[in-house]
Amino acid sequence: MNRVLVFGAGGVGAYFGSRLSQVGMEVSVICRSDFEYVRENGFQIESGAGDMHFKPAGVYQKSAEYPGYPDYLIVTSKVLPDFDVAAHIAPAVGPETVIVLLQNGIDIEKDITRAFPDNEIASGIAYIGVFRLGEGKIKHQAAGRLKIGNYPGGFISPRVQNIVDKFAAARVDCEAVKDIEFFRWVKLVWNLPYNPVSVIAGGVDTRVISSTPELEKICENLMVEVCQAAKACGKELPEDIVQRNLEYTRNFPPYRTSMLLDYENKRPMEVEAIVGNALRLAQVKGLKLPYLETTYALLRSVNKINLETPFSLPVEIVNE
Amino acid sequence: MNRVLVFGAGGVGAYFGSRLSQVGMEVSVICRSDFEYVRENGFQIESGAGDMHFKPAGVYQKSAEYPGYPDYLIVTSKVLPDFDVAAHIAPAVGPETVIVLLQNGIDIEKDITRAFPDNEIASGIAYIGVFRLGEGKIKHQAAGRLKIGNYPGGFISPRVQNIVDKFAAARVDCEAVKDIEFFRWVKLVWNLPYNPVSVIAGGVDTRVISSTPELEKICENLMVEVCQAAKACGKELPEDIVQRNLEYTRNFPPYRTSMLLDYENKRPMEVEAIVGNALRLAQVKGLKLPYLETTYALLRSVNKINLETPFSLPVEIVNE
Repeated sequence: MNRVLVFGAGGVGAYFGSRLSQVGMEVSVICRSDFEYVRENGFQIESGAGDMHFKPAGVYQKSAEYPGYPDYLIVTSKVLPDFDVAAHIAPAVGPETVIVLLQNGIDIEKDITRAFPDNEIASGIAYIGVFRLGEGKIKHQAAGRLKIGNYPGGFISPRVQNIVDKFAAARVDCEAVKDIEFFRWVKLVWNLPYNPVSVIAGGVDTRVISSTPELEKICENLMVEVCQAAKACGKELPEDIVQRNLEYTRNFPPYRTSMLLDYENKRPMEVEAIVGNALRLAQVKGLKLPYLETTYALLRSVNKINLETPFSLPVEIVNE
Repeated sequence: MNRVLVFGAGGVGAYFGSRLSQVGMEVSVICRSDFEYVRENGFQIESGAGDMHFKPAGVYQKSAEYPGYPDYLIVTSKVLPDFDVAAHIAPAVGPETVIVLLQNGIDIEKDITRAFPDNEIASGIAYIGVFRLGEGKIKHQAAGRLKIGNYPGGFISPRVQNIVDKFAAARVDCEAVKDIEFFRWVKLVWNLPYNPVSVIAGGVDTRVISSTPELEKICENLMVEVCQAAKACGKELPEDIVQRNLEYTRNFPPYRTSMLLDYENKRPMEVEAIVGNALRLAQVKGLKLPYLETTYALLRSVNKINLETPFSLPVEIVNE
């Protein structure tokens, strides 16, 4: 239970892969954009907790190049409708491989569970601020916690417990949880409002949102709807979660959301993973959520127009 | 009853001023941006109904330069919170001057009625597609109708009837109406949804909106709320007005709204006249209108960010 393959080695993948390599795991990466550089030099990770150099055991462009099968295949790529992760990872998924989805959003496991019905699937949430600064250069800005659980939940398997223990040994605050879906909803209470609003309000940071009452009100309305959606899906969130998120964000330093950075850099935004899926889950339960519906429609359109307009800036990645 | 001064001689002002001059009225203009050119050359108006050359009786930069007082002071400038029309026109407003507001939006008369409590105020709506192509060059694209009524309504004064008759003599389809507020709400059923949505959906024309069900749905929701607001203000709109507007727009050629052109050219958008005022009128009546509220908040923010970002394109004006 020692071989790890990270698919999508941006900031999140490089950071957590690096951590696991520090406790003796054999960590390889599939690296599409910086392949040449990373194969030669590995990753340089700047971090307030101490800089790290991470030389993966293997660096590949495609999962078919990976020798044998990993024990854990950790997916940290974005969740996008046009990007078929299952097809990309399939060649490296062996019968015993645990697929660990460290991705944003809600209901993001369905394609993988459908494609690999006999594999153990774990779903995880990363609480981390981490940027790609340039080729093989990663900036770890804040936090670095994980929650990981089997998907669907209800129990924690020995193999999931094993990777959680490895993270813990690597000084990552990593918790094994029996109901990862609950924590996805909890995280969505923040992600769903602030990410889209930061974009559709014209490109604003969290400070601008928090200090503009009518924009903060949109976020509050969206949070209330996320709680309604969660409840309809059987996950009752704490009563004070809306007010806590509003206050927490007011006390942030000005923060540009990952969706805003994607927007500004003309990369596809995780519209479906963060907004569309939540809306559809709620609609299936018969809920009518006007704020979510409106936000989704506008964001989809803005994303489409943005990607159609040719213009490009240096690339950055942040993961809330 | 022959002297006319047009304040805000963009496309709308030039077109209707030109028409009145054709029936022997003495039409002068206050022209800020193209002053030098227009004083020398007048306006050249391209129109499918026949090109027109309009040499105003007088061309001024400020209303104080106008000799004496006009019988009619026709205001065609945009309605913007930072632009004090009352102060700008005051020097040319004599005791007998009728102030005619040919402007977009709802509840846009209040500053003028407050500033000139003893003057006769008329409020009018222009149904016209007219662009400024360049210095003194105007393109009349479509329509060209007017509705004009006394403000507040309930009657049609002899002086309002006189200018309406003059427009009619000049072959403008101009109707005197006793309840202009009603027609402002009717026009808002189109203006309030399509103008903001064309901007906050990322910059899309009406064809894109009409062919994207979730965007058209936002427009429909906004139209329903406009009807609710109108009703709360005592103006009950026809039951089929929402469906008629949706269908009408589906059959448009692709059309970029005036707000979208303002946005693209980094000019201030009429956020308050078209959206904010409607919301406030509804709120005073105790209505809660979630779509209007959300649209207003996003549009305000987008407008602010847009004006803060330095970038400028050639100027165009359209008036729905």
